[in-house]
Amino acid sequence: MSKHSIAVLAGDGIGPEVMEQALRALSVVSSKYDFELAYKEYPVGGFAIDTCGEALPKETLAGCEAADAILFGSIGGPKWDTLPLDLRPERAALLKLRSHFDLFSNLRPAKIYESLAHLSPLRPDIAKNNVDVLVVRELTSGIYFGQPKGIEGEGEQTNAFDTMRYSKAEIRRIAKTAFIAASKRKNKVTSVDKANVLVTSRLWREIVEEVATDYPDIELEHLYIDNATMQLVANPGQFDVMLCSNLFGDIVSDECAMITGSMGLLPSASINEAGFGMFEPAGGSAPDIAGLGIANPVAQILSASMMLRHSLNLTEAADCIDNAVLKTLSDGVLTGELLPADQKQNAKSTQDVGDYIISQL
Amino acid sequence: MSKHSIAVLAGDGIGPEVMEQALRALSVVSSKYDFELAYKEYPVGGFAIDTCGEALPKETLAGCEAADAILFGSIGGPKWDTLPLDLRPERAALLKLRSHFDLFSNLRPAKIYESLAHLSPLRPDIAKNNVDVLVVRELTSGIYFGQPKGIEGEGEQTNAFDTMRYSKAEIRRIAKTAFIAASKRKNKVTSVDKANVLVTSRLWREIVEEVATDYPDIELEHLYIDNATMQLVANPGQFDVMLCSNLFGDIVSDECAMITGSMGLLPSASINEAGFGMFEPAGGSAPDIAGLGIANPVAQILSASMMLRHSLNLTEAADCIDNAVLKTLSDGVLTGELLPADQKQNAKSTQDVGDYIISQL
Ligand SMILES: CC(C)[C@H](C(=O)O)[C@@H](O)C(=O)O
Ligand SMILES: CC(C)[C@H](C(=O)O)[C@@H](O)C(=O)O
Repeated sequence: MSKHSIAVLAGDGIGPEVMEQALRALSVVSSKYDFELAYKEYPVGGFAIDTCGEALPKETLAGCEAADAILFGSIGGPKWDTLPLDLRPERAALLKLRSHFDLFSNLRPAKIYESLAHLSPLRPDIAKNNVDVLVVRELTSGIYFGQPKGIEGEGEQTNAFDTMRYSKAEIRRIAKTAFIAASKRKNKVTSVDKANVLVTSRLWREIVEEVATDYPDIELEHLYIDNATMQLVANPGQFDVMLCSNLFGDIVSDECAMITGSMGLLPSASINEAGFGMFEPAGGSAPDIAGLGIANPVAQILSASMMLRHSLNLTEAADCIDNAVLKTLSDGVLTGELLPADQKQNAKSTQDVGDYIISQL
Repeated sequence: MSKHSIAVLAGDGIGPEVMEQALRALSVVSSKYDFELAYKEYPVGGFAIDTCGEALPKETLAGCEAADAILFGSIGGPKWDTLPLDLRPERAALLKLRSHFDLFSNLRPAKIYESLAHLSPLRPDIAKNNVDVLVVRELTSGIYFGQPKGIEGEGEQTNAFDTMRYSKAEIRRIAKTAFIAASKRKNKVTSVDKANVLVTSRLWREIVEEVATDYPDIELEHLYIDNATMQLVANPGQFDVMLCSNLFGDIVSDECAMITGSMGLLPSASINEAGFGMFEPAGGSAPDIAGLGIANPVAQILSASMMLRHSLNLTEAADCIDNAVLKTLSDGVLTGELLPADQKQNAKSTQDVGDYIISQL
C-alpha cells in the first residue's frame, strides 16, 4: 500500500469549508484504491498573518517541504488588502511558494460542460462548440520575477521598471510540458506571444519551434496575445493546449475561466520538475460568501484529483473523482451560483454537493 | 474658411478601397461646413516596401511632418511576413510613426450598436446591456519601447529580456487624457494594471490616483489586467473609459473590439500633446478580401471623423459623419460580414455603403 503525506493549506474565506469536502472525497478514494494519505494542516494567507504574524510562516514552509504534495485552498481578502504589497497574502505566500518550490508548470484546465453551457457569457452556438482548453502557464519566471525591477530618477522623470526575462532552458521546459499535455489530449498547441514587439517572445517562439520538432504529431500554431484574447471570445472551441509565459498565461487563463461561466468548477496545478506540486482552485477566497455553507466545493475536489494524478501518480483514483464530479454536474446537483435565477430554490449546499460526489465515488 | 492638409497613407490590402470612401465623405462635409482639406497621398507598408524599398520611405515621413493630420489605412499581409522583424510593415512603419510623432494617446472606442447586437459573440442579455467602451491606451512607452531589451548569456542560459518602463510624466499625461475623455462620456475611469506584481503598475496606480484628485466628479476604479479580461466578457456594459498601459491596452482594446463582433466598424486615433494625430481603422488590412469591393468602409470613415474631431477641431462635421453612419447602420445598409448567413444576398458593396453614408451627410 502506497503512503503519501499531504500538506493541507486551507487558507482564507471559503478555503476551509471547501477543503473539508475535498479531504472527505480523498479519504473515500484512498480506501477504495488502497493507498494512504497522511494530512497535516498548516496556516497560510490572511489567517496566518492574524495568528502567526506572516502569510507564510516558517513551519508552514517546512511542512510543505516535508510533504509529497501541497493541497491549497485560497487566500486573501479585504482585511489584508491594506498591508504593504510584499506582506500581503498573494505575494508573501502564493508567489513565494511558487518560486521556493520552482513550480514552473501551471496547468489550468477550462471546460464548458454541456449541461452548464447556459452559464457561459458567450452566445450558445459558441459556448456549445466543444470548449475544452488547457492553459499551460510558465509560473516562475518572466516579468513576475525578472530582475532588475525598481524605481529610479527624480521628479516627473522618476520612472519605474520591470524586466521580462526568459532563458532558453526556462522556455524549453514549459514548452515540453505543453507538448506532452497535448499528446494526451487533442494534439494541438497554440503558443501565445507578442513576437512582433518583444525580444523575449522571439526567443520564446524560436525555442517552442525547436521543441515542436520532437513532437511531429502535434500541430503547433502561434498567436499574438492580443489576437488570443480575441479568438478566445470568438471561438474558444478551436483551442486545445494554450502555451503561455507567466503574464500572458495569467491573462489567458482567467479569460478562459470566465468564458466557462463557472469559475467554481475549475482546479489548477503548479508542478516542478520532480513532479512535486501545489493544487488549488482557480477562483479566489470569496470572502463575501465564506462560512455560509453555499460555496461550490467542486474546484477544490478537482484540485485534489489533479494532485492524485500529477504528483502522486494515482491515475485510477483521480479518474474516479473526475467521473463522480461529472455525474454530479449532469445530475444537476449544483450550488446556487450555477443555477438560473428562477431555480435558486434547488440550490444544494457545500455539504450536499460533497455528499453527492462521495456517493458516486 | 479654415484649411488643413492631410497626409493620406492608404497602405495595403483593403486600405486603398476603404480610404476612397472616407475621402469622398470628407469632401462632402468640407463643402457643407465650409472648410478645405488638401490631401497628399504617400506610400506606406508593404506597398512602400515593394515600390520604394522600405515600409516608411523618407518622403512619406516628411509628408506626414508637413501635414496637419495623418489619415491611415491599414498595412501588412502574408507577402511581407517573412521579412526580418525590423523591416516588416508593423514595426518599420506603425511603431515608427507612433514614436516619431510621440503619439502617446491612443483612443479606441468599441460600441455595440443595438441593431447589430446579434453579431456580438456574447450572450444577447450581456451584449444588449449598453456596451460602449473607450479604451485609452498609452502608445509610446511601456514594454514596447522600454530600454534595455536584448539577448545575453550562453547556451541554455541564453536569455532574452524586455523592459517595461514608465515615468511619472508619461503616466500623468495619459491619465489626464482618460479623465478628460470620461468627463465627456459617462464619468467613469477604470484603470487597468497588475499592481499586485509589477513595480511599474504601482507607480501607474499612484499617479492615476493623483490625477484623479483634479477630477472629483469622475469615478475611478482599479482593475488587475487578468480581472479586466474577465469582466469584459462577463459584463462589458459596466465600463466607460478603460485606461491602460501600452501592452495592457493592446490586449484590452482587441478584446473589446472582438466583443462588439463588428471590427469593421471601429476607428482609432493616436494623438500627441499638440493634437497632431494619426487616424486608422482598428482592424487589419484583410488581404483575403482586398480588391473585391466588399470591405466595410465604416471604420475608415469613422477614423476620418475622429480626425476632424480630435486634430482639426471640426466638431460639427465630425458629428455629421457619425450620425450618417448611425443612420446607415440602423437602416440596415451593411456589408456582408455584418449579415447573418441567410441574409448574405442583401449585402451591400463598399461603394454602396459609402454612397448611402454620403447621402445621409
Ligand atoms: C494573485 C496574483 C499574484 C496571481 C498571479 O497573477 O499569478 C493570480 O492572479 C493567479 O493567477 O494565480
Ligand atoms: C501590429 C502591432 C505592433 C500593434 C500593437 O501591438 O500595438 C497592433 O496590435 C495594434 O494594436 O495596433
